[in-house]
Amino acid sequence: MSYRIGVLQFEPKFLEMERNRKRMEDLLSPVEADLIVLPELATSGYLFQNREQVIRVAEDAQTGSTAALFRKLAKAKSASYVIGFAEKDKGKFYNSAMLVNPDGKIFVYRKTHLFFEEKKWFEPGNSGLNVFEAKNGVRVGMMICFDWIFPESARTLALRGAQILSHSANLVLPWCQQAMITRSLENRVFSITSNRIGTEKNDGNELTFTGMSQILSTKGEILTRCETSGECVKIVEINPEEADNKLITEFNHAFLDRRPEMYER
Amino acid sequence: MSYRIGVLQFEPKFLEMERNRKRMEDLLSPVEADLIVLPELATSGYLFQNREQVIRVAEDAQTGSTAALFRKLAKAKSASYVIGFAEKDKGKFYNSAMLVNPDGKIFVYRKTHLFFEEKKWFEPGNSGLNVFEAKNGVRVGMMICFDWIFPESARTLALRGAQILSHSANLVLPWCQQAMITRSLENRVFSITSNRIGTEKNDGNELTFTGMSQILSTKGEILTRCETSGECVKIVEINPEEADNKLITEFNHAFLDRRPEMYER
Repeated sequence: MSYRIGVLQFEPKFLEMERNRKRMEDLLSPVEADLIVLPELATSGYLFQNREQVIRVAEDAQTGSTAALFRKLAKAKSASYVIGFAEKDKGKFYNSAMLVNPDGKIFVYRKTHLFFEEKKWFEPGNSGLNVFEAKNGVRVGMMICFDWIFPESARTLALRGAQILSHSANLVLPWCQQAMITRSLENRVFSITSNRIGTEKNDGNELTFTGMSQILSTKGEILTRCETSGECVKIVEINPEEADNKLITEFNHAFLDRRPEMYER
Repeated sequence: MSYRIGVLQFEPKFLEMERNRKRMEDLLSPVEADLIVLPELATSGYLFQNREQVIRVAEDAQTGSTAALFRKLAKAKSASYVIGFAEKDKGKFYNSAMLVNPDGKIFVYRKTHLFFEEKKWFEPGNSGLNVFEAKNGVRVGMMICFDWIFPESARTLALRGAQILSHSANLVLPWCQQAMITRSLENRVFSITSNRIGTEKNDGNELTFTGMSQILSTKGEILTRCETSGECVKIVEINPEEADNKLITEFNHAFLDRRPEMYER
């Protein structure tokens, strides 16, 4: 199966929801693809200073303005999108990503491993690490940013059948893009890391995001990578079924060679 | 605590046990360190063609000539050594590594994940992934070569208290040295990958080993690395207790932030 997967890298402006949604729409409208991954908290920006700001930007995953925009785009472009957003559900807040399909269905992942001050604003994700069907039934395992440093995240998604890892990110540490090569390789899955760019400041903190959004093959090859700055849309054509072949050598299988009875949980 | 850890890279000659032991002894005799890691199957070479060759080189871990040599060296140099060898025990054969301490004690690890044709010659390791005390009580988790591609190997050793991963290897694939950076980083442990050099051939196969033996910090920094060819001994001074600090940021702990109930086993 030929499948066009893509990554969008841009700079969300802090709390400027309308502007950010418009920018994503403008960038995505001319692009033809089957699945495109966008950054973490792409609608709101990242560096919250208080709970009121979170309340201001958080949305319902099914009925919010972001859901409406991406449903419209998904239908018009016949594409699936993964986009990071601040989610509000029953009075609680999550750092989430939604997978929006051409048929209008939306699946939600809530970040399992929160980074740094996110712990002040968001609940630890309670959705679990799940695999969902995107356009044409391609199986996408959703993770968000800091989930990368726990090998169990990608492993769990791969063992549950993911062909592609969607990895919406706001990366500030220097290691992730390289480490994702290991994640793709050890699990024999494609991975799409969409990172943001730019700098955010508040009273005590300043964060610069590292860009270098990338798409990796099941063998950890860099199929495409953006620069450390600059908006960027990249599309590559893959065959998702390559991820169903877990042979590393004719004698070695990435999953069947595992010996879970010997592993610490 | 100041602790000198080292790596030895050399070229074992196939089936030339006496020569290989002599070469290791000559290379190690002038070196001062607390712990030195040597390659996988360092006594025998790698590319077996039949069971008879394995029988010829396999040794008892406690009473063999290799044990005797490294006990002598460990006492004389007041150092711990990890060395890969073909082990014979109760009529079965294992791709093993022994940790030899200055007091003469020997601990054995049997490779958990066998690579390629090793499956023809060796039993899958039944020792489990264990942590042992080397000189001065420093905690060493032993793994061998292909164990690297399964994140559960290093993870298990780190969760069981390893401060340093000893990684005896005969690497032929291009990914491991980079992937070990992820292993050190995600587990906040030092790692010592000792790889061999040279080429081995038999009827159908030819393998070139990739050298680049390396020592990594708990943050995945390359403290030292050998070239892709050439014998090489490198020593660096570390504080093993750095590995007991699992904080990634003031809000994030590599182990306490894990959510095992969400992970697939």
